[in-house]
Order: sequence, then structure tokens, then C-alpha cells
Amino acid sequence: MIKQPLKTVPLRHINIHDKFWDQYIRLVKEVLIPYQWDILNDRLDGVETSHCIQNFKIAAGEASGNFEGAVFQDTDVAKWLEAVSYVLGTSFDQDLERLADETINLIGRAQCEDGYINTYFTINDPSLRWTNLKEGHELYTAGHMIEAAVAYYEATGKKEFLEIMERFADLICQVFGPEEGKCHGYPGHQEIELALIRLYHATGKRKYVELAKYFIDRRGVGDNYFLQEEKRSEYKQIFPEFAEYDTKYSQSHLPVREQTTAEGHAVRAVYMYCAMADLAQLYEDEELLSACKTLWDDMVKRRMYITGSIGASGILERFTTDYDLPNNCNYSETCASIGLALFGKRMAQITKDASYIDVVERALYNTVLSGIAMDGKSFFYVNPLEVWPDNCMERTSKEHVKAVRQTWFGVACCPPNIARTLASMGQYMYFTDEDTLYVNLYITNTASVEVSGGQVKVEVGSDLTNSGHVVINVTKDASADSYHLALRIPDYVKEYKILGDSGEISGCRMEKGYLYIDNLQEEETKFVIDFEVPARFVRANPKVREDAGKIALVKGPLVYCLEEVDNGENLPAIFVDANQELEERFEEDLLGGITTITLTGKRLTDEEWQDDALYGERKNCFQEVELKAVPYHRWNNRGEGEMLVWMKELL
Amino acid sequence: MIKQPLKTVPLRHINIHDKFWDQYIRLVKEVLIPYQWDILNDRLDGVETSHCIQNFKIAAGEASGNFEGAVFQDTDVAKWLEAVSYVLGTSFDQDLERLADETINLIGRAQCEDGYINTYFTINDPSLRWTNLKEGHELYTAGHMIEAAVAYYEATGKKEFLEIMERFADLICQVFGPEEGKCHGYPGHQEIELALIRLYHATGKRKYVELAKYFIDRRGVGDNYFLQEEKRSEYKQIFPEFAEYDTKYSQSHLPVREQTTAEGHAVRAVYMYCAMADLAQLYEDEELLSACKTLWDDMVKRRMYITGSIGASGILERFTTDYDLPNNCNYSETCASIGLALFGKRMAQITKDASYIDVVERALYNTVLSGIAMDGKSFFYVNPLEVWPDNCMERTSKEHVKAVRQTWFGVACCPPNIARTLASMGQYMYFTDEDTLYVNLYITNTASVEVSGGQVKVEVGSDLTNSGHVVINVTKDASADSYHLALRIPDYVKEYKILGDSGEISGCRMEKGYLYIDNLQEEETKFVIDFEVPARFVRANPKVREDAGKIALVKGPLVYCLEEVDNGENLPAIFVDANQELEERFEEDLLGGITTITLTGKRLTDEEWQDDALYGERKNCFQEVELKAVPYHRWNNRGEGEMLVWMKELL
Repeated sequence: MIKQPLKTVPLRHINIHDKFWDQYIRLVKEVLIPYQWDILNDRLDGVETSHCIQNFKIAAGEASGNFEGAVFQDTDVAKWLEAVSYVLGTSFDQDLERLADETINLIGRAQCEDGYINTYFTINDPSLRWTNLKEGHELYTAGHMIEAAVAYYEATGKKEFLEIMERFADLICQVFGPEEGKCHGYPGHQEIELALIRLYHATGKRKYVELAKYFIDRRGVGDNYFLQEEKRSEYKQIFPEFAEYDTKYSQSHLPVREQTTAEGHAVRAVYMYCAMADLAQLYEDEELLSACKTLWDDMVKRRMYITGSIGASGILERFTTDYDLPNNCNYSETCASIGLALFGKRMAQITKDASYIDVVERALYNTVLSGIAMDGKSFFYVNPLEVWPDNCMERTSKEHVKAVRQTWFGVACCPPNIARTLASMGQYMYFTDEDTLYVNLYITNTASVEVSGGQVKVEVGSDLTNSGHVVINVTKDASADSYHLALRIPDYVKEYKILGDSGEISGCRMEKGYLYIDNLQEEETKFVIDFEVPARFVRANPKVREDAGKIALVKGPLVYCLEEVDNGENLPAIFVDANQELEERFEEDLLGGITTITLTGKRLTDEEWQDDALYGERKNCFQEVELKAVPYHRWNNRGEGEMLVWMKELL
Repeated sequence: MIKQPLKTVPLRHINIHDKFWDQYIRLVKEVLIPYQWDILNDRLDGVETSHCIQNFKIAAGEASGNFEGAVFQDTDVAKWLEAVSYVLGTSFDQDLERLADETINLIGRAQCEDGYINTYFTINDPSLRWTNLKEGHELYTAGHMIEAAVAYYEATGKKEFLEIMERFADLICQVFGPEEGKCHGYPGHQEIELALIRLYHATGKRKYVELAKYFIDRRGVGDNYFLQEEKRSEYKQIFPEFAEYDTKYSQSHLPVREQTTAEGHAVRAVYMYCAMADLAQLYEDEELLSACKTLWDDMVKRRMYITGSIGASGILERFTTDYDLPNNCNYSETCASIGLALFGKRMAQITKDASYIDVVERALYNTVLSGIAMDGKSFFYVNPLEVWPDNCMERTSKEHVKAVRQTWFGVACCPPNIARTLASMGQYMYFTDEDTLYVNLYITNTASVEVSGGQVKVEVGSDLTNSGHVVINVTKDASADSYHLALRIPDYVKEYKILGDSGEISGCRMEKGYLYIDNLQEEETKFVIDFEVPARFVRANPKVREDAGKIALVKGPLVYCLEEVDNGENLPAIFVDANQELEERFEEDLLGGITTITLTGKRLTDEEWQDDALYGERKNCFQEVELKAVPYHRWNNRGEGEMLVWMKELL
């Protein structure tokens, strides 16, 4: 039975001041938002031209020229505004808010009489609206604009953007739907479904959620819409590479309820699963929830990297097959991990099962952070687990793999998506229901939470990625009744100690990964938790052919890797004995302050290959080596070099 | 100093009747040639349409319709005729010869007034002739037609085809060349260079070799011709994927003498290197020969698979970088290995160095034979060293890898190329100079060879791929003076015994891989050689990251592999101890009669993974397994399944 889902805590009630996370979160406001603003306005040399703001000016009739950029170019503005919203929701910034207001006003001026917004179609050919849902990205773009509008409204209380997008959403409701005469299509790139649900929550207008439901229910039913659409006279191909369209690419190969494996383009998939989860909850639709669980399991049990990334194929950024997880040519898009986190959060809210948060945490601490350099100015779109810069060559099978982060991208979804994720970390940290406060992530912060009819102030001090030491102080105001505290015990924690004010806590219950401490009544209670998070070796299921005979190093939520700068070149020639003591050391001056792991290994030498032969009946010669591992997400912050997560094991 | 090169022995003087090779060679005449004839005439259902003969009929004005197929579609006819020629050169077949004559006559009727032949341009738009050398493949196509014409003339003595192609070559000599007013371009796909040299040898007309030299000398000099060509008003793009052309792709990035690494499309590269070697010899050009040696070394010491295949990237079928040799996503085109063999043969002829033949043999016995099924009806274009059928999926990074041989291809270069190679195996088997007979390959045959002013009859009985036992009987006629015999001692032979008529032979000299037995004067001499060819493990240079910690099984010239049908699924989860006795067994009824190798290993089990977790702190659990390895080139003749060459080693 689907019950009332857990709620998140409004971002403005959470104040993060965490040594680990602040390094990244501060980049959003200080670096990413101003940097992207310059890009949106084509003010930066040496990076891809955006033309975004210019497109809106042209669409508004305030400038002349052609549309430039991708068909979904408008989403860069949307994601920027969404990230700005989260920043404004937690810290006042008059200049930034003015910039946002001006941009929103420009969007309003670029809106057509009937509510339509999309600079590509408005500038190029309004008659082609909705004629190519497969590739046109109109609904996808609308979705990101709606998300931004809702976020801006929630952060500032200002209604202009929300009303602009309501007008567009109203138009979309007129155009699409089950009724005769309406278009019976659905988005080529899912996104608007979850956005419409957010718009419903912000406005209370039920029709938005009904349209989201229509899009989800209609998808993959009967004759595939995209294949029908292609045959119409008004259809115009946009991307030649989609000439022979594979309906799996957009998860339209089957009705969503019948889908049991995660297929196609990974970002499309997870955005759709988010909406499915939302709808399952809103409509108490057990069948849809069951589909969500099946798809989640397929992803996280068979198609996910240890770093919480998904999408194994470099071509079409897509899922392939169960247990196919190559490490040096995968796509593993940053945005896909963000979508995975968004889906996992929803599933945890519905099921109160902390195991979903284990995956969310894995994605956030590893792949999402890997997506951005420590200076906030360069980004990984693709997140391999093994890189040899020499073979990351243009026009080869590894052309999608970059050995260094890039300054910007033509299709710039990942950087602003990282920005909005970092600016909204609070959404993952706590859940509440009527009488229980759920602590999901152990990030140093203070928060004010509504529970049991009053306010509870939570102060968390956490050193999770280093010692595992966490202190939680909860203070309830007089109006709050007794309440329960549910502490997530991460899956990687084998042992932990928790002390309350009066020593060891007893009588707690564990349920689905949460430790419930019931009936807190004191005004103030302090908990000291020591999670054991020693560095340790993990292995992959032997069905993962690429990882058989290999081991990876993890510590708490972090996956570690070897880098060439610490360990010399040719990392795949290193072999490690899993039966060894691992030495951990906090290095204050390295990569912003990290715990490194020191271990020993053996490296194949070329002693037997002095003649430069390529193959031969030669002995293995080894050299003992001391190795240093660093957190995966910090790799490539010290110049170009090799990187390796899965090390070969001495068997 | 470049001396007179070694000569090959005319194919008609070699009669192969080898248990190992006959299985394949007989396919050419019995299966491949009739099968391809049906395809050329669009008579087969369920395979790609060829339209080849129809194109020629349309070009001849004898049929109506449009050109269909690839821009180089004519080469399928050319390669068929070339293979037919080699067959006719060794065995009389009136019907086949009549078919060939009719086809040649049709080609003649499709020839334009001025000598031009190319159905694509003739049918589509003659005004576009020579305007797109980068993609048009006119010179490439002409090259294959010329090779076929020379082969047909050599086999049958008939001149019609040769004269047709001379007329076309004369036209090409008028169009291209250093003189003012001529086109200063060169082929986008090399091939005509080596063909023109063959035409020179057949006709004695020096201008053909001069044009070949011009094409080679001009390539990559100054402003790149292809990039200039693109800017001309008459230029019309044929392949959209070459919009941003990488000159390395066609080895036109540098003058050929300055090229030190094998770059770009592998087939283009090796065809060019063949012509470079030919020209180095004809012009006694030490600088060009030195470039050939450098490029050869780069290929075979740093960019070649153990199976003698080249071209590591699935995208653009190209070389990547030194030691980048992934096993499960490589291209390793069959045609590229054929080109490698053709190049190696020339280098051996110039240098009298048998080490080139070691590579030729590696390519022929492994990749070339892997290209064709044992029934001769299906083919591999791509030759990976590790295959897991589940992830060989369309529209993914592994879409070029096929888990089963294909019946035919849209771009059908490999099947007829295999046919012509099998039909002309004799070219690799012997070399001669004035007084020495060189035995390169140990294939059962009888041959008649001119040496020392007379005829020497050679009878070879060989069981090289099994016992290593070889018997050579040489009989000289009265007119022949004393002569020397040079027996190649393969690089994989560590020990061997050779007995002459009167027991052990003494006083032989070893030079560059050949054992010279000097001054044979007897009318008849018999040698019994026992090459030790035990199954053994070999390793790769540790710089090959993909093979570090792995071993491969070889026996004589053959690379072995594990197949799922013998060893169960998930071959990468198998680990092998290199310190073990290998058991060999000749299995008469398996795959046409092969020696299999039995060994033991350990397989990771899922005992610790009963919960279907993907990652975790679990123990390795192993199961002892007995393994059977079969020759690589025979894989996938027993249905779809996994295959693996490089096995993981227990270290």
C-alpha cells in the first residue's frame, strides 16, 4: 500500500556548512553561476558559443539574426535560472535576483500570444511546432523551464515566471491529451512529466498532473507515436543520425508498466522513472510503483557502476545489457547520475527504504562530484572508471572519453545540472512525516524542521568521509510533541556506535536501513555516532565480466582511484594483494584536504621485453610498488594522466 | 643496398593439397565464387543486394535504372574476377572462364569512349569524374579492376581485360601527373598505386609505375589535396561523416617518407605501404625502404594483435596509438590483415628477411581464416579477440562487433578479398632468386620452380599445425646447376631437427630467419624436419594495458581461444595458472579435424553473490575447471557463444 510519502525539507530551512561539500557548493554561486551567465551571453572567449540570451531576444523581436545552437538551447537558460533559484532560496543576493528577474522578463517577452515558448521553433518556423516530438525537444525544453519557474517561485515568492510557464503549460494541456482532436503524442525526451507534477504542487492545478499521467500512460502503447509521426507530410528530420529510429532509445518500445529493464538513453530513462514514481504516489498506483521498483533494481543491481553512474555505451549514451559495464569506454553521463539520484529520492520517499538513499549517496559523492573540477570551471560529461589519455582520441571508439575536464560543451546539460544539484543538496538530506525526522545524508548543517506539530532544530556535525564521526543535536520547541528520529545507517557501515545523552541507546528498531529512535521528548538531545568507515576492498559480482579478478577501494561513500601523478604510468600493469593492511592518512594540503589510502602492489616491468617485442614466451617480472589512492571524484585536478578504479588482484 | 628482389613462383606451378588449407581453398571454387556470382547478379534472397552486374549493364546502355550500391560497388566484380583468375590459373574450368569472359566483355561495353570505367560516375553524373578524390573511390576502383585484369591475363593469357584496363590506365596517366594542366591529386583510398605497378610488370609500360610513384611522392606534400578539393565549386560531398576530414585517415597528413607511425584507416595504410615497398625496390630508393621498415615496425611491434590483425578502433576502422589493443571492441578488419600480408611479402622479397614472413603467416593462419566460416558462406569483417554476444548490440559502442559471421555485407570487400587470398596462397609459399629456393610456408604441395638455370620440383608434406613434422623432397632436372635451399625457421620454433638423405645436416648457415642449405647437387634430396610446435603460453608486452596479467595459448602459427560451447559462459571469470602441463589431442571429428589443447583453470563462482548484489565486500570463490582451447580461426563454427583469446592468469 502506498501511503503518504515522506516530505523533503524546504531548502531555505537548511544551512550547509560542511568542509567536504562547501568546497563544491560555494562554486555554484561564486563561479558556476557567473561563468554560465557569461556563456549564455556569449561573453567568453575560447568556449563554445551559447547564443542563448540572443535567441530569446530574437524571438522577442528585440534583435535580428538567426537561431543558433541546439534545438534545446533554451534549456541552458532554464537550468541557470533553476540553479539561481536554489541559491537565492538559501542566500539573499540582490544583483543576482535582478539578473534573474531581467531574464525572466525577457522570457516573457519571447512568449507567443498563445503562451508558446521555444526560441528554436518561434524563430525558425512556428508552423513546425509539435510536428517532430521525437527530436524537437519542445516538451523537454518546456519541462526545464517549468522546473525553473517553480524553483524561482519557491525561492523568492515571485509569481511572474510561474505565471509565464502556467500559460505555456495551459497551452500544452490544450494541445495534448486523450480527447479527440488533441495530439496523442508524448515527449521524445522525457522531462516535462516530472515538471508538470512540480507545477501541480506549486499551483494546485490538477490538470497538470493529469497531463503528466497521460504522457506516461500513453508512452509505448499501440503504434509507436514517433514512427507514425515520421510519416506525416509536415514532418521534418532534425538529426540525421536518428533516421532509423530505435524506439528503445526513448523508452517508447513498450508501455511503461511493461518495461522491466532499463533501456535506451539513460537520462531520458531516469527522468521518466522520476515521473512514474511521482504518479505512482499521487494516484496510489501500485502497478506503476511495481514497475518503478523493477526498473530501479535492473539499474542498480545489473547496470550501474560502483560510482553510481549509468549508461554503458558511448554511442547514444545508453544502457546496453545486464552486467555490461566496461570501465574505459563507458558513457556514464553526469546528468544520468543526477537523474538516478532524483529517482532514488522519490522511491525512498514513497517506501521509507533507506537503501534507495545508499544509491543516491553513491551517485552524488562520486559521479556528480566527478563532473566538476575543484575550481568549478571545467566539467566531465562522461565519467569513465579507467582512463589512459593516449587513447582518448578524436574520431575513434573512445572519442567520447575525455582525459581532462572540458571548459564547456555545445550540448551543455551537465554543468548547469551539476549547479542545480549542488544548490539543492538539501532535498536529499532530510525527510519528514508527521512525527518522524529522517536523516539521510550526514553533512554538516543546521536545519529547522517541522515535525510533530512544532519545530525541531537539527545541528549535524559530520566527518563522514574521513573518520565517520557524526554529532547530531536536536532541539525541539515547546509546540512540538514527542517525535521520532530515523537515522539512515549506510549500507557500507558494518559497525557503528551511537551514544545519546545518557550513554548507549537501547530499544531502537532498525527498519529498511533506518535506525528509529522513538519518542524523543527532551527539549534538547545530543547523539554521537561513530560509523566505522575504514578503507576497504570491494569486489564486483563475477557476472560483471570487466571486473572479474579486480578489486576497488572504497571508504564510506567514496570510491577511490589510482592516478598516474601518484603511481606512475601504466596503471593496468599494477596488481594488488587484497590481504593487506590499508593505511589511511588525512592530507590537509592535497586536493582540498582528503584522506588518502596507501597500499602496496606489484607492477609488471619490461625487464623481459628489452627487445621491444610485442608478444612472446616471456616470464612475468614484477617490481614492488607503494601505491596511493585518492577519492575518484577528485581525479584530474592535477593535470592530465592515467586513472584507474578497478585494480587487478593477485590471485 | 636494395638488390634484386626475390621472385615469387607463378601460381600455376604450385599445386596445394594440404589437409589444413584445402578445407578453405576448396571453398573458393566450390562455394565462394558461385555464391558471389549469384550475389553480383542479385539472385540470392536474404542477403544484401549487390546490383553490381546491373550497374555495368546500365552504364553500357543495355539496361535502364539507377546506380545502386556504394560508390565503389564495381570493386566487387573486380575482386570476383581476380579470385576467378587465380582459380583458373591452377585448375581449368570452361564454364567459369566463359562466365568471366562474358563479364569482362560487359565491362568493356561499359567503358566510355575515352577509356573511363566507373559505373557510379558514368551512370550518375560523368561531369563529376575526379572532382571528389577524397570519397569518390574512382582510383581505388580502377586499381582493383587493374589487379583483376593483370591476374586474368597471367592466368589465361587472354588480353581483352588487360587491354580494357590499359586504356583506362592510359586515361588516368593523361589526367594525373606532375605536368601543368594535369590533376595533382592522389587517391582518397590507396590501391591503384600497387595495381599500376602490377600493370607495369604485365605490360612493360614504364609510365604506369611512374604514375604510381607520382601518387606516392605527392601524397601529403604541401597543402592537403583533399582539403583543397573540398573548397572547389564542383565538389560534392558523398559521405556526410567525412565533413570534418582528418587527413590522417587517408595517410595524407605528411609526405609518406616522413611518416613514422601507422595512422588512419588500416586498409588504406597497408595498401599504400605495399606500393611504397614496390617503388623502393624498383627505384632502389633507400629512403622509401627505410620509411617502409619504420612503418612496418610500428605496426608489428606496437599496433598489431597476436592474431596478426590491425586497426584497433571500431570507429573509422583505424589505427589509434601505440600499444592500444583492446580485445573486445577492436576492428581488426580481415582486409587489413590481407594487406599486411601483402606488404610483409614484399618486404621479405626485398630484404630476404624471414621475420616478415612470420607476420604474414600469423595474419594468414589466424585473422584471414577467421574471416570465413568453414562452410564458406558467412564472413567476419571485424575480428575481435574477445566476444560476449549479449553486448554486441546494434546502436552501441560495440555495434561493429558481430557475434556470428554475416552472410554478406553492403560494403563487401572482405569476402572476395579472402577468396582472392586463398586462391593465391602460392604467392607467399616460395621465393626464388637466381640460385636459391626459399621455402616460406610449410603447406603440403608440389611445385615446379625455376632455379639455377633449370627446374626443381619440390614436394612438401607438412603437418605443421599438428605435429610440426615436415618432409621436403627436391628433384632437380639435368639442366639445373647446383642450387641452395633456404628454409624459413619460424619465430615460434625454439627447437627443430633436420635430417637429410645421409642423416644430420651440418654446415648450414642461418641468416635472417632462413636456414640455408648450400650447393645441392644431387638429382633428388629428401629432408625431414621436425619443428617442435608444442602448445605454449605467451604473454604480451606489459605496455599493452589490455593484456597485462593475461596469457594466450599458441601452437605453431596458430593462436588458440576458448569458446563458450566447450567451456561454459562467462569466460572472463576464468583464471589460468601458466605453470601447468598442456595436453594436446588431435580431434578428427571436431571442426574439420584440429588439435585441441586441454588445460585446467579456476572459475569465479557466484557463491558469495546469492543476493544478486552488484558490488560488495565479498570473498572470491573459485571452482576448478577443465578447459579446452581450439584454434582461433575456427571459432564460431558451432553456433553463437562467447570467445576469448587472452585468458586471465593466476598471479
